[in-house]
Amino acid sequence: MKLVVIGGVAAGLSAAARARKLDRSMEIVVLEKGPTISQGLCGLPYFVEGQVQRIEQLIRYTPEQFARERNLDVRVNAEAVTISHPRREVTLRSGEKIHYDKLVIATGARGPMPGSDKRVRGLHTIQDAALLKQLIQNTAPKTAAVIGAGYIGIEAAEALRAHGLRVTVYQATDHVLGRADQELNAIVTTQLRRFRVDLRLNTRVTPESLQDDMIIDASGMKPNVILAQECGVEIGRTGAIRVTDRMETNFNGVFAAGDCAESTNLITGRQVWVPLGTTANKMGRVAGANAAGARERFQGIVGTSIVRVCGLAVAMTGLSETDARAEGFEPVSAVIHSRDKAGYFRSRPTSVSLVGDRRTRRIIGGFVTGDDGVAGRINVIATAITNRMKIDEFELLDLAYAPPFAPVWDPVLVAAQQLIKVM
Amino acid sequence: MKLVVIGGVAAGLSAAARARKLDRSMEIVVLEKGPTISQGLCGLPYFVEGQVQRIEQLIRYTPEQFARERNLDVRVNAEAVTISHPRREVTLRSGEKIHYDKLVIATGARGPMPGSDKRVRGLHTIQDAALLKQLIQNTAPKTAAVIGAGYIGIEAAEALRAHGLRVTVYQATDHVLGRADQELNAIVTTQLRRFRVDLRLNTRVTPESLQDDMIIDASGMKPNVILAQECGVEIGRTGAIRVTDRMETNFNGVFAAGDCAESTNLITGRQVWVPLGTTANKMGRVAGANAAGARERFQGIVGTSIVRVCGLAVAMTGLSETDARAEGFEPVSAVIHSRDKAGYFRSRPTSVSLVGDRRTRRIIGGFVTGDDGVAGRINVIATAITNRMKIDEFELLDLAYAPPFAPVWDPVLVAAQQLIKVM
Repeated sequence: MKLVVIGGVAAGLSAAARARKLDRSMEIVVLEKGPTISQGLCGLPYFVEGQVQRIEQLIRYTPEQFARERNLDVRVNAEAVTISHPRREVTLRSGEKIHYDKLVIATGARGPMPGSDKRVRGLHTIQDAALLKQLIQNTAPKTAAVIGAGYIGIEAAEALRAHGLRVTVYQATDHVLGRADQELNAIVTTQLRRFRVDLRLNTRVTPESLQDDMIIDASGMKPNVILAQECGVEIGRTGAIRVTDRMETNFNGVFAAGDCAESTNLITGRQVWVPLGTTANKMGRVAGANAAGARERFQGIVGTSIVRVCGLAVAMTGLSETDARAEGFEPVSAVIHSRDKAGYFRSRPTSVSLVGDRRTRRIIGGFVTGDDGVAGRINVIATAITNRMKIDEFELLDLAYAPPFAPVWDPVLVAAQQLIKVM
Repeated sequence: MKLVVIGGVAAGLSAAARARKLDRSMEIVVLEKGPTISQGLCGLPYFVEGQVQRIEQLIRYTPEQFARERNLDVRVNAEAVTISHPRREVTLRSGEKIHYDKLVIATGARGPMPGSDKRVRGLHTIQDAALLKQLIQNTAPKTAAVIGAGYIGIEAAEALRAHGLRVTVYQATDHVLGRADQELNAIVTTQLRRFRVDLRLNTRVTPESLQDDMIIDASGMKPNVILAQECGVEIGRTGAIRVTDRMETNFNGVFAAGDCAESTNLITGRQVWVPLGTTANKMGRVAGANAAGARERFQGIVGTSIVRVCGLAVAMTGLSETDARAEGFEPVSAVIHSRDKAGYFRSRPTSVSLVGDRRTRRIIGGFVTGDDGVAGRINVIATAITNRMKIDEFELLDLAYAPPFAPVWDPVLVAAQQLIKVM
């Protein structure tokens, strides 16, 4: 039995490692088109900023480690160019053909294609990040434009501000971070302005129309499905590969995982494309397990994410009120502004928003902004949403309290009280 | 309609405030035996330590504020000495009799009775804390003994170490923080030793047998139920007042809330006595709502708490493996030691333990130790336990990830993977 995995980052390596755990004898080959594997792409902006000193720190494993420690055959600079499922065969750019019994496609996402303008860079690969940093150090740019106010755009803006550049962020829609939420927009916009990042919403630009010394194109991320599509693997409505909850495609024994694959939104039941490292790892684990003969399921996601916006932690989960309405819910939302610890401790401001559905009284979304406690608080909301919790049960959750860590009424419970009032 | 509330701290004031919110015309009287109300008793050790500068910072409201802002008649130095339910009447120490239609008993907990030995102090009231601090400043004690390694004992030890005292903590049983858990004990013991607190387990002492300059008796906390018991209110097996899920006692229209009342453990379904400020507030809210004619329920607790142990955050929820076995579960546990952020960020060590039940695969307990993320992580586990989540669903929870805030596999998910392996 031979498993071939296309892609050597989060989903691909998770799949390969998990398959090995469950099947010690299976032959496992990982094909990575680039020169390195296991790069922590979420860390790229922090390398540009300088928090991460050496780019090698973002690379967790080498192919040699995988070979030695897990008996995996990991090949770099090995780009798969075609899949023939009738022959169960992957062809590499070198012409080499590799047979598979089981296949995991983990080809990730891709940014906009690089143009001829040397000022324009992406921030999607280790190479992008290294080039950007070089450019900053060698050409001492004074101004930068960032196209797109998604995670990468916002993180890139913060990194460039840390180098003293004047930064303008252009966003084609009226909201940031992919979240149509007025309150959240106001908080993020204020924070960006405080750090003198010039945010221009509802402004569609092309790299060519900009005059800045440096342009980062953080727009137009797409699932990288060319290889899959060409061999007949079914693509979903979202543009990503359609998979079952076992991460299997329409081809028996062919799995897909990570940023190239769809997942199910547990609130709406609909297929969505949410490319995030944490989901990629989970999908990869499940795909790898099933490729090795197990029967595991990946139920789906609720859409949890967190991003640092010029020092402010901004986290969200579930649906915004706007999105919830579009999905047929009857959403009600409440936002509270509070402190993250007991008042007589060194507390910091935090804001919590909850979205509930009036018909079912279920919690269906929320966001949290603030300092250290933000990740934990959004995760409590995400866990509640996953469990289809009603706001009335949520309000009385038994959460931890001691003065150095939280106020006696945790901000998420205060938000719940507020939501119940308006429900 | 007249509501009388006995007790002017967490539960009592929550009840009074909530009743007022729901009923603007009800007459509401709060009777507090001490000279102040609304004291944040959980903050006392931080006042002794010096983190809280002035003791007044621990008092959130004055009776005048409650009168002005909420139309509540709050009386200090008004100790209720008897209740006559047949006459629906409370008698004060002054001899004054006060009629009630509805009554909320929120008499709290009490520590050991003060003895004649002047070196011996409690740490249960504002007065205790003020005296302790004075004693430290005026008599410059060199050594201190703390009796009891529960929350208050551990927090007191840290506070005394901050003043340079040599501190010994005596605990009659073989475990600390009321949790029979070997792994947790090892972590807490190591941390105390690191801060040169001498912890002696399995050591039963009396204040009289100790030679130290100062002795803090943090043992023997009990529900303060004398008043209730004398008038015929039913006391439960735990020694606290037995209540329905509406917080009503065996007397119609008489409610109890806070540290004097029992609550239901949601995992075992059994009555327990867990005196914590956060639970007291929730119970008070529900008691107040029902006293004002609403029909609200307080389902119960899962036993979540957090405490700072010489700088280390230590949090727990649900049942320990030992307790779970005693309750008839078939517990399995796993503990992992990880980092709380991406490796290339300024991460700190964190440990997560999960306890599952082999028969149902439900998560029934856990602890987390570490730095800032501890409260959030224990709250995720508490939310999962409340929702009777199985470990297999928990493992794939959609939790927030970005390098400054968490590793791509959150430590709680890594613990879940580990628990599944041994399950």
